[in-house]
Amino acid sequence: MSDATLHFEDFVPERQFPLGPKIVSAKEIIEFAAEFDPQPMHLSEAAGKASILGGLAASGWHTCAMMMRMIVDSFIGRSTCQGAPGVEQMDWKKPVLAGDTLKGFGVVLEARPLKSRPGIGIVRMRTELRNQRAETVCIAEQSIMFRMRESGENRA
Amino acid sequence: MSDATLHFEDFVPERQFPLGPKIVSAKEIIEFAAEFDPQPMHLSEAAGKASILGGLAASGWHTCAMMMRMIVDSFIGRSTCQGAPGVEQMDWKKPVLAGDTLKGFGVVLEARPLKSRPGIGIVRMRTELRNQRAETVCIAEQSIMFRMRESGENRA
Repeated sequence: MSDATLHFEDFVPERQFPLGPKIVSAKEIIEFAAEFDPQPMHLSEAAGKASILGGLAASGWHTCAMMMRMIVDSFIGRSTCQGAPGVEQMDWKKPVLAGDTLKGFGVVLEARPLKSRPGIGIVRMRTELRNQRAETVCIAEQSIMFRMRESGENRA
Repeated sequence: MSDATLHFEDFVPERQFPLGPKIVSAKEIIEFAAEFDPQPMHLSEAAGKASILGGLAASGWHTCAMMMRMIVDSFIGRSTCQGAPGVEQMDWKKPVLAGDTLKGFGVVLEARPLKSRPGIGIVRMRTELRNQRAETVCIAEQSIMFRMRESGENRA
């Protein structure tokens, strides 16, 4: 692991990481929904318009998956990430509609060593995504595990 | 909507719905991860074995998406579902590994009419999935909106 790799110690409270941008296409919305969430408002513009979502709308789980990809591209992909025990909260505040552009940020809320796994720490983060109308579309709080720097390595 | 369609009123506390079974293939794990969560332990058996997950493991978000599909197949697909405002809790208790068979249940915790949207109610549910070793792999709590029966319709 190079010094540039993000370790547990690099996730200090209030540190922010940018997420996105990601343009959400109708094709992607329909493909995800056909496999994982085949409800009418996620499969056709007409059914989406007739629903309270107001248009062809991504499954909430698709929004989660797209957020994860933005997180990997922003910081997890260059980190010592060891997985995650779950998600504390996920609010889908507004529908994500075909053609929307999503971007946002992740911010470190809290970081502590894991007693049960020496050399690993857990980082609680809040992640938020907004659309091109500056509306917040989702807010998540989740905890992610990272390996610590080994004693032989220099700190970044 | 036929009488057989599940409406808000059908989601009474303690009612259970079966989920699955669903066999999770290595191919599906890798395809989902390549698009949404390209971390080594979700992309190759060797990297998974070297990680604390112990084998090629599904992204937690993939597990969520598979759970959603089981929920649609079990009850949402024959309901007046109007979407969901989010997820209150999602615990990934054990890794979901290639070859695992997942099944479980959803249970209604609470149901109440939405003041802000006449004719729609919100149902809080817990959903759980177990693997073929009877280990619980994930537990979620989420709220889902359903349309109520209209006065002109008969109750089931």
